[in-house]
Amino acid sequence: MSRSCKFNGRLWALLPVLFAVALRAQPQPADWIWSARYVITEDPRHRVIENGAVAVRGERIVGVDTAAAIDARFHAAQRLDRPDAILAPGLIDTHTHAAMSLFRGIADDLRLQDWLEKYIFPAEAKNVTPEFVRWGTRLGCLEMLLGGTTTFTDMYYFEDQVAEAAKEAGMRGVLGETIIGFPVADAKTPRDSLAFTEKYLARFRHDPLVTPAVAPHALYTNSDETLKAARALANRFGAPLIIHLSETRKENDDELAKRHATPTQTLDNLGVFNGRTVAAHCVWVNEADMAILKERHVGVAHCPSSNMKLASGVAPVTRMLALGIAVGLGPDGPASNNDLNLFEEMDLAAKLQKVTRMDPQALPASTALEMATMGGARVLGMEREIGSLEAGKRADMIVVRLDRPNAAPLYDPVSQMVYALKGEDVRDVMVNGRPVVRDARILTLNEASILAKAAEYRAQISASLK
Amino acid sequence: MSRSCKFNGRLWALLPVLFAVALRAQPQPADWIWSARYVITEDPRHRVIENGAVAVRGERIVGVDTAAAIDARFHAAQRLDRPDAILAPGLIDTHTHAAMSLFRGIADDLRLQDWLEKYIFPAEAKNVTPEFVRWGTRLGCLEMLLGGTTTFTDMYYFEDQVAEAAKEAGMRGVLGETIIGFPVADAKTPRDSLAFTEKYLARFRHDPLVTPAVAPHALYTNSDETLKAARALANRFGAPLIIHLSETRKENDDELAKRHATPTQTLDNLGVFNGRTVAAHCVWVNEADMAILKERHVGVAHCPSSNMKLASGVAPVTRMLALGIAVGLGPDGPASNNDLNLFEEMDLAAKLQKVTRMDPQALPASTALEMATMGGARVLGMEREIGSLEAGKRADMIVVRLDRPNAAPLYDPVSQMVYALKGEDVRDVMVNGRPVVRDARILTLNEASILAKAAEYRAQISASLK
Repeated sequence: MSRSCKFNGRLWALLPVLFAVALRAQPQPADWIWSARYVITEDPRHRVIENGAVAVRGERIVGVDTAAAIDARFHAAQRLDRPDAILAPGLIDTHTHAAMSLFRGIADDLRLQDWLEKYIFPAEAKNVTPEFVRWGTRLGCLEMLLGGTTTFTDMYYFEDQVAEAAKEAGMRGVLGETIIGFPVADAKTPRDSLAFTEKYLARFRHDPLVTPAVAPHALYTNSDETLKAARALANRFGAPLIIHLSETRKENDDELAKRHATPTQTLDNLGVFNGRTVAAHCVWVNEADMAILKERHVGVAHCPSSNMKLASGVAPVTRMLALGIAVGLGPDGPASNNDLNLFEEMDLAAKLQKVTRMDPQALPASTALEMATMGGARVLGMEREIGSLEAGKRADMIVVRLDRPNAAPLYDPVSQMVYALKGEDVRDVMVNGRPVVRDARILTLNEASILAKAAEYRAQISASLK
Repeated sequence: MSRSCKFNGRLWALLPVLFAVALRAQPQPADWIWSARYVITEDPRHRVIENGAVAVRGERIVGVDTAAAIDARFHAAQRLDRPDAILAPGLIDTHTHAAMSLFRGIADDLRLQDWLEKYIFPAEAKNVTPEFVRWGTRLGCLEMLLGGTTTFTDMYYFEDQVAEAAKEAGMRGVLGETIIGFPVADAKTPRDSLAFTEKYLARFRHDPLVTPAVAPHALYTNSDETLKAARALANRFGAPLIIHLSETRKENDDELAKRHATPTQTLDNLGVFNGRTVAAHCVWVNEADMAILKERHVGVAHCPSSNMKLASGVAPVTRMLALGIAVGLGPDGPASNNDLNLFEEMDLAAKLQKVTRMDPQALPASTALEMATMGGARVLGMEREIGSLEAGKRADMIVVRLDRPNAAPLYDPVSQMVYALKGEDVRDVMVNGRPVVRDARILTLNEASILAKAAEYRAQISASLK
């Protein structure tokens, strides 16, 4: 009897636990469950979950686990099961000029300075309007989303139009209005440009998808005063600043000749790094420069395709990573690449460091994938919101099919993502909890009208250059 | 009256001409007319024909012109009209190991010697059988054809199985049986291997699709006697010889230490270049080596992806081209790339030379496309048969779609092919007058069974390495 009493006593003590289990067994509501053969999480433990799933409620991820565990915990209104695919975080583009899609292939095989000064700047002077930027960005978002990019970091003119196009597409963006020291389509002077940017920041500062940013083009295209004003403006709005930095050897040589300092040193002296900064390219940075970038928490956008095609050089990516600098990937503008494809940038980032350093282990597949996901998130200061599949983060994710010959056989999902799968293998995309690509078809934009408009602009642009 | 007489006299004189015109106006029969918005011919004048077409009779091209002219000259039994696409010569792969598709991604981010000796050679020793080669090559052919490659140059074991798989796929191949100085799956000794190769050459020597070849693996894996015997055997059958050459610095250093000569010099001294030769990689060739390659008419297979991924180095491609050496492109085996995609190799070949030589004009798009077409044909000694769209040549051609966002807008079809279009944009493929891909679907192979078999082999190979 005493034994029975003891037993009863134990049972009572277990009641709260049983209650909690019962509650837990009661499935929680979710808007979506997406399941796949492999879930690449990019979480701190770099978990790859076989037969995994992600539950989404509203704009956020609420669970990441095996499909069995997710199905036990959540009851979803809608679901997408992809038994022969990888589910991965949406890819993060840390540097592009999306609207320049309309200049894709207009001038190739030229030096950056010739390419800019003889082709791109004149073509822009004659063609860039708000409508041009709107349509060009729609084209860019279309290509990016179909290729698995869910966040893009942009620098262009009429950036309000870029923001509107991104919102139409349902795509996340850190979108920087260009400030440059000569008259351009949306501003006659840097002062005009700063005023334009201020209005733009005010308009989009609370947008759920768009993070508006201030984008002084480069040190060599802006006065010191403008650069300081750009930083001050960005800080007033808590906005990031985006700038090209040490893309070419010439940029460095000119600055060294002018004031015996590297561009990084000068920008630091001017206080430009006193706040969230994304520096694109950073090809010609030395040890002292990298120490500054590290100390100032400057994020670096590495653009291997563009740096190769324009023969700008090879950025010291492995060194920057070893120093703990946040490094992400960017395709740069589609006029110097000539596409917007982060699968290619991952593959190239790995291969270019290997061959340049003559070390096949210099930048492994896992690092390349991290650069395109969590690394990019860190560059943008958004590592708590995006870059991995973890409960609490924004639901930005992609499904990549494994049923094509280039995916077979599969030994390692991460190696396959970087070296064998393509942007064209992306099948489904969700941004901020909203499906935007389904079965490789865009759900948010009118593809036919965008392609027709691109052909119209092609005729207009060609005529303008004659 | 005299005027009328003169007129009549002129008329009579014109009769043969009129007769010829009438004959010409009578459309000639053709089996196929394929038309497209642009026909990139890669003919000696590098013509790109807007609204062009190609007429095919039997295995050969009989006409290449504007669609209007082709329609006037030919009456075709069947036609394929692609108003929003490029029609181009089939791409030519000058170096691969197609069956190694089954090892795709098995071991990455390693040095060539470690990768070979610790992973690939053991995996091959445990798994390579005739069936393995047959299925692996089927998988490779599937990926290659869907990506626009119509001719591949292969080096592997059981090459008779490779040849049979190529014939099943309807794909053209220059297919070399490997000869190597240690026991392998299809031969215990080089002598066995030479005997195997002789039978193989005899069996396929008159095949319309397969050019059988002799493939001593490399200088460092074969004795001098075997290399000489391989050359003699090749010459007895008028067959090409395929060999890896100066892929790594180690290969050069070892040979220099051994007999104070570069691998190229040694092979030349041994007489290995006395006949049609395809040398793969040629990363570490110096000026004297290149002079030898030029003098001996050795064709070079440049493999940029593989050379980057294995950190082998950067081949002096622009120098070889300037010297007039025939240089083609190869993806190398899909275990070191990790795909079989000549669109990527074109893009990389251009970008890698640019950044390495710090010259954005080092290797323009037109040269990259030529390397993948006529350049490859010259490497194989098949420049009279394949590599361009010209009347009299074999009908090997591809249709590449222009209706996707990455193709818009289009300023220059050649730039677009190299820098913006992808293997996945290939829509239709013809080899030797036979359609083998239609609407991105393979017509000749059973894709589902190949992918299922790849998954089976993956399980078997993984288990064998534990």
